[in-house]
Amino acid sequence: MDLLKLSGRGQFVPLVVGLVGLPGRGKTVLGHKLQKYLTWTGHRARVFSVSGYRRKHHDYTGHDFFRADNENAMEIRKKSHLEAMQDAERWINDGGEIAILDGTHSTMAVRQTLHNFFVKQLKCKVLFIECLIDDKDILENNIKEITQLSDDYRHMDTEKALDDIHQKVKHYLEHYKPICPKAEISYSYIKFHNAGENISVHHLDGPYQTKVLGYLSNFRPLRKTLYFSRHGESEFNLLGRIGGDSDLSTRGHKYAALLANYFNDLAIPNLQVWTSEKTRTKQTAEEINAPVDNLVPLNELNAGICEGLTYEEIQEKFPQEFAWRDQDKLRYRYPWGESYLDIISRLEPVLLELEREDNVVVISHQAVLRCILGYFLNTEPDQVPYLKVPLHTIIKLTTVGYECHVDFIEFKVECVDTYRKRPEVCNTSQ
Amino acid sequence: MDLLKLSGRGQFVPLVVGLVGLPGRGKTVLGHKLQKYLTWTGHRARVFSVSGYRRKHHDYTGHDFFRADNENAMEIRKKSHLEAMQDAERWINDGGEIAILDGTHSTMAVRQTLHNFFVKQLKCKVLFIECLIDDKDILENNIKEITQLSDDYRHMDTEKALDDIHQKVKHYLEHYKPICPKAEISYSYIKFHNAGENISVHHLDGPYQTKVLGYLSNFRPLRKTLYFSRHGESEFNLLGRIGGDSDLSTRGHKYAALLANYFNDLAIPNLQVWTSEKTRTKQTAEEINAPVDNLVPLNELNAGICEGLTYEEIQEKFPQEFAWRDQDKLRYRYPWGESYLDIISRLEPVLLELEREDNVVVISHQAVLRCILGYFLNTEPDQVPYLKVPLHTIIKLTTVGYECHVDFIEFKVECVDTYRKRPEVCNTSQ
Repeated sequence: MDLLKLSGRGQFVPLVVGLVGLPGRGKTVLGHKLQKYLTWTGHRARVFSVSGYRRKHHDYTGHDFFRADNENAMEIRKKSHLEAMQDAERWINDGGEIAILDGTHSTMAVRQTLHNFFVKQLKCKVLFIECLIDDKDILENNIKEITQLSDDYRHMDTEKALDDIHQKVKHYLEHYKPICPKAEISYSYIKFHNAGENISVHHLDGPYQTKVLGYLSNFRPLRKTLYFSRHGESEFNLLGRIGGDSDLSTRGHKYAALLANYFNDLAIPNLQVWTSEKTRTKQTAEEINAPVDNLVPLNELNAGICEGLTYEEIQEKFPQEFAWRDQDKLRYRYPWGESYLDIISRLEPVLLELEREDNVVVISHQAVLRCILGYFLNTEPDQVPYLKVPLHTIIKLTTVGYECHVDFIEFKVECVDTYRKRPEVCNTSQ
Repeated sequence: MDLLKLSGRGQFVPLVVGLVGLPGRGKTVLGHKLQKYLTWTGHRARVFSVSGYRRKHHDYTGHDFFRADNENAMEIRKKSHLEAMQDAERWINDGGEIAILDGTHSTMAVRQTLHNFFVKQLKCKVLFIECLIDDKDILENNIKEITQLSDDYRHMDTEKALDDIHQKVKHYLEHYKPICPKAEISYSYIKFHNAGENISVHHLDGPYQTKVLGYLSNFRPLRKTLYFSRHGESEFNLLGRIGGDSDLSTRGHKYAALLANYFNDLAIPNLQVWTSEKTRTKQTAEEINAPVDNLVPLNELNAGICEGLTYEEIQEKFPQEFAWRDQDKLRYRYPWGESYLDIISRLEPVLLELEREDNVVVISHQAVLRCILGYFLNTEPDQVPYLKVPLHTIIKLTTVGYECHVDFIEFKVECVDTYRKRPEVCNTSQ
C-alpha cells in the first residue's frame, strides 16, 4: 500500500518578503532565521541574497562601491537585484511559497520596483520588513558580527572592516528613505525596531504574513546558549517499555544529581528550567537551583494504544502498526496517539519561546528533543526520528548570527541504550 | 479501553488581556471574538465584562453615572472592576488560560491596579490591548451598534441612546490617558488603530500573546456576509463511497448551474469563490462569475486507508477502526488519515482569512464545513461532527457585532442523504 503522505499544510498565494534597512540592522540574520522557522513549520521558504548575486559580478574591495555617484557600481547593484528577483520568480513558479529578498531596498523607487514585479506581474503578495535600530549597543554588536560573518570582509582585518561598514552606511544614508506611512500606505509592512522591542504593523494580508508576524514578535537576535537533556534513565527504560510515567532508576537519580551539580557550579544568572509534566523529567530537574516550569508540550510522543508496551510486545500484538511505523516514522501515528509531525506542530509555541529566551535548560524526552534539535540544526524532517539524543548527556547549543553550534557533554553514569535504528527492510505487505 | 484524549495543546503561564479605550472603540466585540477564536483553537478563554458586574449594582439610567465627580458611582465602578478581577482570578486558579477583562482601563492607575493584581500577586502575564479610532465612519458605526446591542440601552430610544453615549465619552475624555510608551514601557501592549488598519506592538511575551497578535492582525470588525456550500452530489456520493476525487453526478451538475445562477443574479461586488482542490468542488464553482481560488486546507477529511470505501466495507474490513470512530468522532483518526481535530487545526489560517474577508463563497465538503460553521456558531467541539450540512443547500452567514445569523437556502435538486447519526451503542469491546 502506498502511504498517503499527510501534510495538513495549506497552499496560499505566495508571499515575497522584502527586507528594508541600512547595513548592520540585522536583516540577514532575521531573513535566514525566518526562513528556517517557516521551513520547519512545513512551508517552502528560501532567502535570495542580493549581495550574493552582486559578488558574482564584482569582488568587493571597499565602501567606494556604494557611493551614490559610482555609476558602474549602481548598474551592478541594479542587475544583482533584478537577478535575485528573477530567481525568486522561477522558484515561486516551481512551487515556492515564501521568498525572502535580502537586500537594503533603501529607496521608494527600489521598493516600488519589487512591488510591481511581484504583485502586478506575478500576483504574489509582498510584505516589507524594515529593520530599524537606534540602540547603539545593538548596532555596534551587529556591525561586529558582520565583520565576522560577511563574505565581503573575509579577507579584511577587523578594524578596517569596521571602518568600511561605517563608511558604507554613510553612503547609504545619502539616499535611504524609511518606509513612509503616507506615500507607501498601499503596502503591507512591518517595522521592526531595536531587535524586536517595538513592532509596528500596517495592513497585513494573508496567512503567511500572519505567520511571519508571529515569528517576529518572538524573535530576539541575540547570541545565546540553551541546554537540553533527556530525563535520567527511568524504570521503564530498564524494562524496555515505552511511554508511561515511571520514576527514575537508581542510575537515573545519580545522573540528576550530577546534572544539578553541573548547573549549580556554573551559577548562570537567570537560569530557567523547563521540564515536561512527566515524573521522570521533574525528578531529573529536582536539585537544580533555578525556577522550574512543567510544560505539557514537552511531554513525550504519545504512543496511544501502545503506551507501556515493549517493542517486542507491539510487534506481536500490532504487527501492522509496527511495520507502518518503520516505514515512515516521521508521519506514522499510533492509534489514539501521535506522530513526530504532531510533536513538531505542538512544539511550535515552545520553539518561539526559545527564540526569545537565553539560558534555558530543557529537560524532556527522546522524540521531543529530536524535534527541537532538528529545528535548530536544520535537519531534514525525515531524518529527525533518527537523530541521536542519548541518555545522560547534556546538549549545549550556542547561537551566533543565524548559525548554531552544538556540544555534547556526556556524563559517566551507565544507562541503557534506547536508540533503535531504522530496519533495512520494512515489511508492510498487508 | 479508555480512549486517550488527545489534546496536543499546551499549557503555559496564564494570560490576562486588559482591554483599553473609550466607549465605542470596539473593545467588547474584539474581546468576544478573540475569546471565540481562542476557545476554538483549543484554549480555555473567557471574557469578564466590567459593565456586567456594574449592572448588578446599579440600573443604568444615563451618562451622569460616568461623570468624574460622581463619587458614589466611582465606588460602584471600582467595586465592579475588582469583582471582575476576582472572578478572573478564581477561574484562572481553576485552570483557565486566557482571561479577557472587558473594561475601559482608561487611566494609568487602573492599569497599574490590574497589572499588580495579576502579575505581582498571581504570577500571570498581562497584555493590554488599546483600541483607538480616529476614522469617523468606523466610530459612528460602532456607536450605533452599541445602542442596538448593549444592555444599558435596551430600554432607551436610539436618538437618546446615541446622545447618551456621546456624553459618556465626554466624561471619559476628562481623565482618559492612552497607554504611554514611556511611563508604561514595562507593560506588554498592542495598540489597535482604526479597526486593524495599523497595529503597534510593544514587548510581547509568551505563546498566548503571539496567538492574540495573530488574531488581531486579521481581525476586521465589520458587518459581513459569507456563503458556504458543499459540492453538488458526486458520483462517489451515489455509490456511498467516502473520499476520493470523483466527478459530479448529473444532479450535482444541475445544482452547480442553479448555484451559479443564484450568485450571478445577485451580482455581489468583489465576490470571491474558494474551493478545495478536489474536482467535485471545482466543478461546482465552474459557472459562477467570480475569481476562484483552490485551497488545500479546504480538502475533505482524509480517510487514510479507508479512502474510497463504503461504510459497510469499512465495518467489514476494519471493524476496530469503525467502532473507534463512532466512539469519538471528533478525535478519531483514520490510519494515515485525519480526525476532525486535525481539520480544525489545518483550517486555522482559513478561518483567520475569513475574519478579514467579506462576500466569500466557500465550496467545500461535509466535514470541513462542519468545522467552519462550528467556529462561527460557537458549537461545542464534540457536536461538530454531527452538525447538519446537507447537499444542495447554501448556508448564508451574516455577522453583526460578535453574533452570527445563519440562513439555509435549500435548492430543489434531489440528492442522496450523506448524514450518518451517531449510533446509540458503540461496540469497542476489543
